[in-house]
Amino acid sequence: MSVTAASGFTAAGIAAGLKGFGKRDLALVVNEGPLRSAAAVFTSNRAKANPIIWSQQVIADGTVSAIILNSGGANCFTGAEGFQTTHATAEAVAEALGVSAGDVLVCSTGLIGEQLDREKLVAGAQEAAEQRSSNGGGHAAEAIMTTDSTPKKAVVKRDGWTIGGMAKGAGMLAPGLATMLVVITTDAVLLPAQLDAALRAATRVSLDRLDSDGCMSTNDQVTLLASGASGVEPESTAFTAALIELCQDLARQLQADAEGASHDIAIEVVGAVTEDDAVEVGRSVARSNLFKAAVFGNDPNWGRVLAAIGTTGAAFDPYAVDVSMNGVRVCSAGGPDRPRTDVDLRPREVHVLIDLHAGTETATILTNDLTHDYVHENSAYAS
Amino acid sequence: MSVTAASGFTAAGIAAGLKGFGKRDLALVVNEGPLRSAAAVFTSNRAKANPIIWSQQVIADGTVSAIILNSGGANCFTGAEGFQTTHATAEAVAEALGVSAGDVLVCSTGLIGEQLDREKLVAGAQEAAEQRSSNGGGHAAEAIMTTDSTPKKAVVKRDGWTIGGMAKGAGMLAPGLATMLVVITTDAVLLPAQLDAALRAATRVSLDRLDSDGCMSTNDQVTLLASGASGVEPESTAFTAALIELCQDLARQLQADAEGASHDIAIEVVGAVTEDDAVEVGRSVARSNLFKAAVFGNDPNWGRVLAAIGTTGAAFDPYAVDVSMNGVRVCSAGGPDRPRTDVDLRPREVHVLIDLHAGTETATILTNDLTHDYVHENSAYAS
Repeated sequence: MSVTAASGFTAAGIAAGLKGFGKRDLALVVNEGPLRSAAAVFTSNRAKANPIIWSQQVIADGTVSAIILNSGGANCFTGAEGFQTTHATAEAVAEALGVSAGDVLVCSTGLIGEQLDREKLVAGAQEAAEQRSSNGGGHAAEAIMTTDSTPKKAVVKRDGWTIGGMAKGAGMLAPGLATMLVVITTDAVLLPAQLDAALRAATRVSLDRLDSDGCMSTNDQVTLLASGASGVEPESTAFTAALIELCQDLARQLQADAEGASHDIAIEVVGAVTEDDAVEVGRSVARSNLFKAAVFGNDPNWGRVLAAIGTTGAAFDPYAVDVSMNGVRVCSAGGPDRPRTDVDLRPREVHVLIDLHAGTETATILTNDLTHDYVHENSAYAS
Repeated sequence: MSVTAASGFTAAGIAAGLKGFGKRDLALVVNEGPLRSAAAVFTSNRAKANPIIWSQQVIADGTVSAIILNSGGANCFTGAEGFQTTHATAEAVAEALGVSAGDVLVCSTGLIGEQLDREKLVAGAQEAAEQRSSNGGGHAAEAIMTTDSTPKKAVVKRDGWTIGGMAKGAGMLAPGLATMLVVITTDAVLLPAQLDAALRAATRVSLDRLDSDGCMSTNDQVTLLASGASGVEPESTAFTAALIELCQDLARQLQADAEGASHDIAIEVVGAVTEDDAVEVGRSVARSNLFKAAVFGNDPNWGRVLAAIGTTGAAFDPYAVDVSMNGVRVCSAGGPDRPRTDVDLRPREVHVLIDLHAGTETATILTNDLTHDYVHENSAYAS
């Protein structure tokens, strides 16, 4: 059900002809109210796609009627013509729904540097508006897939209110954010400022801690829409907790489907002086090609973990650090502990525990291994 | 001739049994004088191997009699026992040569987290000292190879004086520095402070701009030794220029032999406000797995160049940037220019030109593509 699990939302996912092969490539999510509260977070890449530039203006007043998302092209580095395509798409949605274009968010994903087919988008927007329904969430989640092998959907239900979401993203996954598009809907009664606070708190500890390949996207957007249709106004802590649960679920789904990956790696850093230190240390390991290639080869090469964390500015003594892999402490106090042959890295799930012995803060970063298939998929993407 | 091209130096490269298969794995370079000036630069990784910790003490007074380098093990994260092995190796060299152990540099390269065989090292040091000769540079360059497929040697001759060098390094190549061991010798008459200034100036624009895989080593060391045997005291600018030429030659040799690479990529950044900005922009591209995988697939995916540089803090407008690949301007002012099909990426040499249109500073970063063979070599390294 994804984005239509919460009441007050309709959605559609249609084939507008952007991807060819008759695949669904255009998703529309409409907030039917009564509220039209919204919040969004965007890529921190300075090279922003046209839909990001557009959507950052739309979200400013916290009111959103609909969001339209296309796969089949990122509409990034496509100049004024590309921006006009984004604008025309929003206008087409607005006209079909009888709302203002200034309340329509736009997201795009696919190859950078190519123009989208504006006519197909405009016609598709009209068709999607007509086809939208209160059980269209599944089709919408399909339509935003690029190299994803499976749609990502999640639902969290609480007493009287619901949060549902969909996500796409398989490559260019890195914090700030990844090549991810996420739409989350709720029928809870919440104001835009409440949504914004909850969304920032939730993405910080979930989607923003997924770093599949260290490459930051130009098109990332995570949007949260509230219809208020349940009539229930949850406590902000309860809502944030539910939202974190949903975002972590989606983050794990994105990790599990990362391009070419054969291992899902959780890097848990404990004993840090600050949470930022823990995140920095975890990310340094998540970005070590040598470590990630070793995991692909089922090689518990903990020296590469220490070589990676030694490049950070985090507060710790490299010669006080312990490292465990899948429960086996292979390094203690910066020296060899149990033999690496004791570690079994054949399961898809890999847990790396790094104890900095410097403080009490923790963070977990999710990443994947570096595989032949990753190289293959990303060397053949545009051709 | 490598390190024995300059007069006043002897060297040896022997098989001490560290690597097995009777391969050369221990190199010794001895400064026979009359001067014993020296300078060195080290990895900026905080996780430093035992030989780095040792050598940083030795170099402090600018006087070095000999340097011993082993492959077959990095002696990193091996605790007090590992440090004692480094110390014992230096003592063995000192005893064989009749010099102070405090004037003997030690370098190690290979797997992290395993103890080296101290007895073999000590016996090998004795043997290397006995076998050293004024034409031993070739064997020394062979003995420091790990996954290198070929030894790296360079010589620059000037009027009356010579600089020679050897290098190893094929993976974990990243600035600050790479997994590189470099020994450079000269018979010019120079004081330690002059050597230090020249070495820092030269590595900054050569070895430190090679970023093959973004992984910073725990063991990097670049050492410059001067015997003064030529009796010629060069101008410092002339010496630095010759040293830059030699270091750039070695850097290109390291790049050409990088693990699994099928393309040598030079990323030239122009139009930057500062040289640091140019370096940061170039490195961001050199560290984009998506861009590097695209080059492997001969795909001129310039959108991935812009996505990478958008993550930097350098001063420029992403929508003013031009990008050319192998002479074809595929992006101008942040939008599509000539079709990507005009770009031929089949040659091994790839030139990416990024014009930031923000200033007049420039820098070139050398990197490699991300290939199946890179993943293969680094997933099977320890096993």
